[in-house]
Amino acid sequence: MRKGERTRQEIIRRAAPVFNQKGYAGAALSDLMGATGLRKGGIYRHFRSKEALAAEAFDYAWAQTLRARVHDLDARANSVDRLKQMVANFVERRGTIAGGCPLLNTAVDTDDGNEVLRERARKALEVWRSYVSEIVEEGIKAGQIHKHADAQKVATLLISSLEGAIMFARLTRSDEPLRVVQQHLDGYLEGALRAQPR
Amino acid sequence: MRKGERTRQEIIRRAAPVFNQKGYAGAALSDLMGATGLRKGGIYRHFRSKEALAAEAFDYAWAQTLRARVHDLDARANSVDRLKQMVANFVERRGTIAGGCPLLNTAVDTDDGNEVLRERARKALEVWRSYVSEIVEEGIKAGQIHKHADAQKVATLLISSLEGAIMFARLTRSDEPLRVVQQHLDGYLEGALRAQPR
Repeated sequence: MRKGERTRQEIIRRAAPVFNQKGYAGAALSDLMGATGLRKGGIYRHFRSKEALAAEAFDYAWAQTLRARVHDLDARANSVDRLKQMVANFVERRGTIAGGCPLLNTAVDTDDGNEVLRERARKALEVWRSYVSEIVEEGIKAGQIHKHADAQKVATLLISSLEGAIMFARLTRSDEPLRVVQQHLDGYLEGALRAQPR
Repeated sequence: MRKGERTRQEIIRRAAPVFNQKGYAGAALSDLMGATGLRKGGIYRHFRSKEALAAEAFDYAWAQTLRARVHDLDARANSVDRLKQMVANFVERRGTIAGGCPLLNTAVDTDDGNEVLRERARKALEVWRSYVSEIVEEGIKAGQIHKHADAQKVATLLISSLEGAIMFARLTRSDEPLRVVQQHLDGYLEGALRAQPR
């Protein structure tokens, strides 16, 4: 990697928690300078605008976050166990990037505003929903999940519940909401989704 | 009401959607001036700071939102029906204040930042959770809800799922996530919570 590209990546890496904690409007140039140790010119040599940097920072933060959430899923042979592992990862493998879930933060931050960032968040959500959806579909094919399950709905339910729980947990500074939702989703996955062996 | 107090209330009412859509940092003085039709001095004669105005605007937006969510709940005699009505209200009675749920927005906006606003959001969430929790407890006492139900957990689950769904719905500009979560919660309330008549 060339030095310019290395610097660029380092700026993204350091800017990501700033945007994730402060939001797009709240992340001041002085915050970005403080986090990167660069002056304005040093940052904008690599990015044509704050928006361009924020978009790259979101993609970086989301990639790290999604990686933590799908950690070790392939080690589970059964689709229901994979879904339960994803829920457990969501609860236990947080804090990859300071400031909570980049998807939730960016969605809320930009749903009435910045279209470029909003589009990144929308795509991130679609990728994640497809990922979960495919686990359900594989499970149906393998006879591990009830054949009447609607893969897209299951994915929407899991993601909605978990993202809402993280808002609740962060606002109350307690893990309890995440544990409550995990317990409920585990029960749902075992009780309503898992097909009984024939 | 004195003229000064009327003006103050009118500023709060007009500023609320600005903060709810743009967030605390994103709501510029020019936005607030545009929404209220007042100059800087006209606004700050009534509020000692942007933070003070934002806090009042949040309380106003939240009061409107909570009112919509608990609409007609008392008309339902059964506690399970009251909870289902609240879920339905959440899905159907949105848009009281432009910009989505003020609680979700303010929670995400301030969980790493503004302590005054964060505290308002935290209190709003606690009040809402207590409200839901009490419906469950009344239902247990009346024999309408299983006696082993944990009222606080039920409230946490409902609120988390709904708030996550609204993020999902707003980001994808589709009501489907809200409908999916409503269907799931209705099934949960009927299947796991409602006590069968003896």
